[in-house]
Amino acid sequence: MLTSQPKLAIGIDIGGTTTKFGIVTLDGKIIEQDKISSTSHSNIHLFIDELYSKLFPLITKAGGIQQFAGIGVGAPNGNYYTGTIEYAPNLVWKGIIPLTDLLHQTFKISVKLTNDANAAAAGEMKYGKAKGIKHFIMITLGTGVGSGIVIDGKILLGHDGFAGELGHTIIRHGGRLHKGTGAFGSLEAYASANGVKQTALEFLAEDASNSSLLKNYNPEEINSEIVYECALQGDILAKKVFDFTGEILGEALANFVMFSSPEMIVLFGGLSKAADFILIPTKTSMEKNLLPIFRNKVQLVFSDLHESDAAILGASALVWEK
Amino acid sequence: MLTSQPKLAIGIDIGGTTTKFGIVTLDGKIIEQDKISSTSHSNIHLFIDELYSKLFPLITKAGGIQQFAGIGVGAPNGNYYTGTIEYAPNLVWKGIIPLTDLLHQTFKISVKLTNDANAAAAGEMKYGKAKGIKHFIMITLGTGVGSGIVIDGKILLGHDGFAGELGHTIIRHGGRLHKGTGAFGSLEAYASANGVKQTALEFLAEDASNSSLLKNYNPEEINSEIVYECALQGDILAKKVFDFTGEILGEALANFVMFSSPEMIVLFGGLSKAADFILIPTKTSMEKNLLPIFRNKVQLVFSDLHESDAAILGASALVWEK
Repeated sequence: MLTSQPKLAIGIDIGGTTTKFGIVTLDGKIIEQDKISSTSHSNIHLFIDELYSKLFPLITKAGGIQQFAGIGVGAPNGNYYTGTIEYAPNLVWKGIIPLTDLLHQTFKISVKLTNDANAAAAGEMKYGKAKGIKHFIMITLGTGVGSGIVIDGKILLGHDGFAGELGHTIIRHGGRLHKGTGAFGSLEAYASANGVKQTALEFLAEDASNSSLLKNYNPEEINSEIVYECALQGDILAKKVFDFTGEILGEALANFVMFSSPEMIVLFGGLSKAADFILIPTKTSMEKNLLPIFRNKVQLVFSDLHESDAAILGASALVWEK
Repeated sequence: MLTSQPKLAIGIDIGGTTTKFGIVTLDGKIIEQDKISSTSHSNIHLFIDELYSKLFPLITKAGGIQQFAGIGVGAPNGNYYTGTIEYAPNLVWKGIIPLTDLLHQTFKISVKLTNDANAAAAGEMKYGKAKGIKHFIMITLGTGVGSGIVIDGKILLGHDGFAGELGHTIIRHGGRLHKGTGAFGSLEAYASANGVKQTALEFLAEDASNSSLLKNYNPEEINSEIVYECALQGDILAKKVFDFTGEILGEALANFVMFSSPEMIVLFGGLSKAADFILIPTKTSMEKNLLPIFRNKVQLVFSDLHESDAAILGASALVWEK
């Protein structure tokens, strides 16, 4: 009797707060999904137990485990080579977690793990703007600044699986302190959600005119969405926040382009909602800082995958990676 | 009748002033070599004619063209994909030069071309410190700062063949002007021969003690070798020149490591003669600027290939690349 090739994959996105998972078809439709807390289990085994209790019924509903080609997982500090999560500062489980082994024992199916930004790049390559593109860089602009680098159609892992930590590259020598790492002037200190907020607060503090719409907000609640709304209403200081962020991000992107010469850079995450307010200064700065041979060659685009689905989609795409 | 596999390769290194070429055995011995001027031919055809008149007798002496697997060429702005030299600012031939076509027509043998730093990386991978290493970065510290990046045992070319221009990445925002490119604060403005010279002259101009041994030299003749000799004699200012250069170079290397997570970085060229004077501050600065997961993992070494042979050897190594 002939059995058909499995056409489904499981995508699991382990975030600092929530773990989302879903069942994804080969053409990128999420047919089932659910989530559990990432923080409420005192150890990884209890986490896996709850995951199993929620996920197994979905697998059964979709026709049983034999319909599945595998599980893909995106997690902070997830290492593709070892299948372990190693010393993730934002997760409650400490040390080295042998995640793919644990999931394989539980679900009896092949499991691939990588970090969240690499999973996002895998999703972008299979289902997003980078479909068919062999050389691109994915930049995730969220709580942190993550990156997934694709070279010749493969996610760049480096000799130890940790390649692509572009958010931690230094772009302003002696610049703003990144509290999490102690580094001065890393990209993440400027282009993350917190970075944008800090820029807005610094600009407000220096603003002699005292006329910015951002003054109407409690400093604590200011975020890139609020800055965007103010910019939309013509607020000059709000626009300056994006100009400044874009100038720095663009300079960093120029450096990345001169490393791997990608055809495309895909931006994803909270900051990308600021649309042209962030895209235009970023592109202007990138082009300005490139050697002429690289100019006007790199497509700089926003991902068009839904933010809520992208993490599950990206994790599931690992299953189909060669 | 069985014919044996060809065991020889031709390596051609086209530099701004001189073109060196040689016949290289599979195990990296240069058995014949010669050179011609890169500047004295009014067009590329006359250059190829002279190259042929000098190289063909060497080929004949080595047993004829059937002994050869191919020709490898390293040249500024040499593009592997197109086989052309494109708008090389330091060569007398302008525009796009179809070099591999011209050489193939002349020598009737397969020809591979890449830029000089990529050729150096190919040589390092086949015959040097990076033998057997799948992920490494080669940095050439000469008149300019070049780079060849190896990912999974292959030279990184990018979507258009121009990947690996790390000398032009910006490491000091708003920093020193690079006269050739107009960029401010690129790595090459500091870590090239000219960069080191400029640093020495700046430090001398600011030196209130007026006691540096470098004062004994005509400013025009100061170069990294003279700075090295002074440092060897205990000159504080000369040491400071290398400390400053190493701090910047190390910061740049940290950024590169967080991109591709290499196992090794190989330094090559003039500045590497300064040995520990440059290596120690570079390594200290690199480690300091790395995220903890990358620390104490990357071997930072000097190439041990002879500078005079390395260019020919590297170009010839392209022939054996898969």
